[in-house]
Amino acid sequence: MGERCIVILSGGPDSTTLAYWAKAEGYEAHAVIFNYGQRAQREIEYAVKTAERLNMPYKVLDISSLKELYTGVTSLVDPGMKVASSFEGSLIVPFRNGIFLSIAVAYASSIGARRIFYGAHIEDGSFYPDCRREFYKAFEASARLGTGEEITIEAPFGDIPKSEILRRGYELGVPYELTWSCYLNGPKHCGVCESCRNRRMAFREAGLADPTEYEE
Amino acid sequence: MGERCIVILSGGPDSTTLAYWAKAEGYEAHAVIFNYGQRAQREIEYAVKTAERLNMPYKVLDISSLKELYTGVTSLVDPGMKVASSFEGSLIVPFRNGIFLSIAVAYASSIGARRIFYGAHIEDGSFYPDCRREFYKAFEASARLGTGEEITIEAPFGDIPKSEILRRGYELGVPYELTWSCYLNGPKHCGVCESCRNRRMAFREAGLADPTEYEE
Repeated sequence: MGERCIVILSGGPDSTTLAYWAKAEGYEAHAVIFNYGQRAQREIEYAVKTAERLNMPYKVLDISSLKELYTGVTSLVDPGMKVASSFEGSLIVPFRNGIFLSIAVAYASSIGARRIFYGAHIEDGSFYPDCRREFYKAFEASARLGTGEEITIEAPFGDIPKSEILRRGYELGVPYELTWSCYLNGPKHCGVCESCRNRRMAFREAGLADPTEYEE
Repeated sequence: MGERCIVILSGGPDSTTLAYWAKAEGYEAHAVIFNYGQRAQREIEYAVKTAERLNMPYKVLDISSLKELYTGVTSLVDPGMKVASSFEGSLIVPFRNGIFLSIAVAYASSIGARRIFYGAHIEDGSFYPDCRREFYKAFEASARLGTGEEITIEAPFGDIPKSEILRRGYELGVPYELTWSCYLNGPKHCGVCESCRNRRMAFREAGLADPTEYEE
């Protein structure tokens, strides 16, 4: 078995590609999947399916009590808020990735893993502060101090756009029809929320067929 | 109303004193209380009582799914493990305070608070890496980068011993009989676990009467 690592898996195309990549790189990857009370509960099912398909041990952690903090703050959690079709503040789930990373650090420490992989990429970083390299490297420093262990936090796709992630994923055989991007929880991708738009555009930019069924 | 802040409240003497202190300082303090699956569920009741006594808004967040990570790792969570009477690795809940702080950061961002207070002190810091100033200041840096807000993480008792916290608490009128330190969950403090020993010793060092009922 390769080196043990943690993959933060959301069920979206970026983190799903990451899971395939980690497997291909020979890591003994353990997936951590979060139910933080997101509207798109469907993404959790997709994440679980990915872990199972890859025969990767995984944990689904229920931290849905965070809904209490995020209600009225972000439409990704609060069903009373409208989901925007282009970036705006209501799409930010404050410090969500900080919470995910902190739990991943605890998990890594508990099972003797050192590397934590997450799917941040350069385009997310331009809008979401907790996807930026300067953030996760600062977080890594605090994780080392807070555990006394040589934890690293790595975003292997941190410097490339989403379209390039998709290209790599195609080479790795990622079945993108089995990933979920939509911020809503309909039977199909809505096709118009910010996340669906980014998904569509990335397939287009990559010059790849988009296997997604969209409502619109 | 004073400046809004977050107090991480565990129900123990340190964080309870912190809550009284924040109130006395005139902050509009919001308490956050965690159920992380700890054996000492009783501490949660004490924390809630403190918040209610102080008329402080509070949230009890259920993140007890973390038990899955900590089973076999720490006796503070795993009832199958023996609770040590002096410091050893099994008393460390890896990166627990990192998780608490990350959620507190999300809460602060959501309600427009900037300061997060937690009850780390100098003696804990000598054993628990996530109680050290260098840790929480590094965490603060990551919190600022991850939110884009001027969050601060402060441990007002970070440089003093527990006995001194108790002295300050007595001046503030903290009813220490309504705080919980024991790592177990018996009807009374066990009196022999590491945390009970520290509690007893701190009262002794402070020259204060200890109102706690101990089993032994």
